[in-house]
Amino acid sequence: MKNDFRLIKTCEGARAGELITPHGTVPTPAFMPVGSQGTVKALTPEEVKDIGYSMILANTYHLYLRPGIDVAEGLGGLHKMMAWDGAILTDSGGYQVFSLAPLCKISEEGVTFRSHIDGSEHFLTPELAIDYQARLGADIIMVLDVCSAYDDSFEKVQQSMELTHRWAERCRKAHKNQNQALFAIVQGGVFPELRQRSVEFLTALDFDGYALGGLSVGEPKKLTLETVAQTAAQLPGEKPRYLMGVGSPEDIIEGVARGIDIFDSALPTRVARNGALFTREGRRNIRNATFSRMEQPIVADCGCYTCRTFSAAYLQHLFKSGELLAYRLATIHNLYFIHNLMEKIRVAITDGTFSRLREEFWSRYEPTDEQVRVSQKQKWLKSKGRRLDIGISGN
Amino acid sequence: MKNDFRLIKTCEGARAGELITPHGTVPTPAFMPVGSQGTVKALTPEEVKDIGYSMILANTYHLYLRPGIDVAEGLGGLHKMMAWDGAILTDSGGYQVFSLAPLCKISEEGVTFRSHIDGSEHFLTPELAIDYQARLGADIIMVLDVCSAYDDSFEKVQQSMELTHRWAERCRKAHKNQNQALFAIVQGGVFPELRQRSVEFLTALDFDGYALGGLSVGEPKKLTLETVAQTAAQLPGEKPRYLMGVGSPEDIIEGVARGIDIFDSALPTRVARNGALFTREGRRNIRNATFSRMEQPIVADCGCYTCRTFSAAYLQHLFKSGELLAYRLATIHNLYFIHNLMEKIRVAITDGTFSRLREEFWSRYEPTDEQVRVSQKQKWLKSKGRRLDIGISGN
Repeated sequence: MKNDFRLIKTCEGARAGELITPHGTVPTPAFMPVGSQGTVKALTPEEVKDIGYSMILANTYHLYLRPGIDVAEGLGGLHKMMAWDGAILTDSGGYQVFSLAPLCKISEEGVTFRSHIDGSEHFLTPELAIDYQARLGADIIMVLDVCSAYDDSFEKVQQSMELTHRWAERCRKAHKNQNQALFAIVQGGVFPELRQRSVEFLTALDFDGYALGGLSVGEPKKLTLETVAQTAAQLPGEKPRYLMGVGSPEDIIEGVARGIDIFDSALPTRVARNGALFTREGRRNIRNATFSRMEQPIVADCGCYTCRTFSAAYLQHLFKSGELLAYRLATIHNLYFIHNLMEKIRVAITDGTFSRLREEFWSRYEPTDEQVRVSQKQKWLKSKGRRLDIGISGN
Repeated sequence: MKNDFRLIKTCEGARAGELITPHGTVPTPAFMPVGSQGTVKALTPEEVKDIGYSMILANTYHLYLRPGIDVAEGLGGLHKMMAWDGAILTDSGGYQVFSLAPLCKISEEGVTFRSHIDGSEHFLTPELAIDYQARLGADIIMVLDVCSAYDDSFEKVQQSMELTHRWAERCRKAHKNQNQALFAIVQGGVFPELRQRSVEFLTALDFDGYALGGLSVGEPKKLTLETVAQTAAQLPGEKPRYLMGVGSPEDIIEGVARGIDIFDSALPTRVARNGALFTREGRRNIRNATFSRMEQPIVADCGCYTCRTFSAAYLQHLFKSGELLAYRLATIHNLYFIHNLMEKIRVAITDGTFSRLREEFWSRYEPTDEQVRVSQKQKWLKSKGRRLDIGISGN
């Protein structure tokens, strides 16, 4: 089998392992930089690799709309198109259809949506999601799922979950490419009973891995972590577990503590482009007056290209001047910070010292108030009328 | 002497030489990528060096306003601040004061202008221009000059030129840093008589090099080239000649043919960010439908990173998606194209085959209509009320 997962060591719930793919072995716990449109924003593939990453995430929704599945396929698939020879995981596009597309109607058969680029209408089914991902040629692909919002009722979350299950079965059937691992997505919102049913249903179908979907969508952080802990504990130990859309330093260390193997999030790269840089003490805004004459790099002993080469004052100058190099340098720093954290976590798990690392992390780290961030995101989604016009119709 | 110029070979008016600076030797004819704000837009210093460049241009006006001369000096000067160990030439900021600042009043003593960033008022004199450039620490610095517009009367151009001469004398006196070469700027618009007087006045003061200023500011291309030819022919053969603000492939080859050694222009990098890529046949817009499925790179046998790594279709995808990587990849290609052209030119001059190279160039190359571009620029300047409120007052 070209795809496999090996659990190497566990330590107080945290797991160190190896994800084997046709494009190399990925040490876990792993964070995937996000390259939705077939590029990790602001970086070349060499830079992503040089930082230390061996797997990235791309997105079927984005690539389907632009440049189009047939164009990407004609260019030799995603790896060749973007000149990335490491592993790639593609999300099916389910989440994006629900969160980005201006209109989205779900039926038993699939989902009709409008492009957020030109308003054109499209229809996506579980079978098409698998076909598109086969043609993109990622190493790991995802089932098409139906996402719930935090404020959905128990009944609505249950309906979405049950449809996710039927779609997972159809994806499983449609999946023929033996070079691609297929992961299922556990839904069920923050209802322990539903999450448990989702785990039972999906593990019975025996997927190559299991993702936790529908989290970090507005619910209190405490509830996210409880749901992660409960769901991960019910998943089979020998299969990889992927917490979707989560990737701040604080969320990663807490996710690992609850048994998560794989993370992805646009957060480290997005906040970097806004000038927010990770430090051991928390995020720092490079535009702050503190940095305006600082000869030292933003993190004194950081090994990233940005910190090895440039002062904090110069980085601030680039941001204030709107220079393109600013976004790249900040992205490199934040991705390096996360990669470095993943490496430390892995060593600590292997050495049996993970809880000490976690304590040390929290003794210095001041998290950015995620509640504020999440409620802003919720507000934004509401303002776009998202989630409100989604009704499960049809059969 | 740390700065020097060696003329190695001439061929039908074209010159091959070497510019020796405290930060390395620069083969001429040379093109300088523009890094006005202390960064060649979208690139790291390593990328600029890897393409093959050994000298770049930065701008005193921009750096004075942001991050400030004292900040740059506190960070160890321009080389250290931007991590560029090659040669740097700084322009004095004269041209920018006249073209960018919202208000600008000239007196015998100097020029009062408002910042285009925050509207604050500033005063620049020849002595301050030299002091600022000494503190920035470039290898080659420029006198403060007074620029004319193409539609200025003979009398006005003459007045500007004479003030430029008096300022050049003051710059010469203020210049103490023996590590920095000081170049004068020949003015006189498109009036042969004035250009000749300017050359005579400035060469009598014996500068380290001579720039041709006030060209490519709206005059017909034919007139630019005639003025370049006439002026260059009058300049001393043993000193380097720098044609300011000119740098399209077609203008470079014609400038070299008229005896120019050094060029700079934001054009190759600016048009790159707009998706216009240099080919031997002329500029091509990457957004064009021709490229939407093209597996080959934009220039099949190009040796640049972009063409060696990515298809034209992928580059189009990055541009259409507004991805930051697009600007970098296009910038790399255009700067590589220009560098490659400079190398070919230098070899041809050394081999005595420059006119054959020039013929070959023109047998394939279709220039973009510069007249259109220049008249657009003129319109833009007019729309900003530039040049209209400039009056030489005072003594």
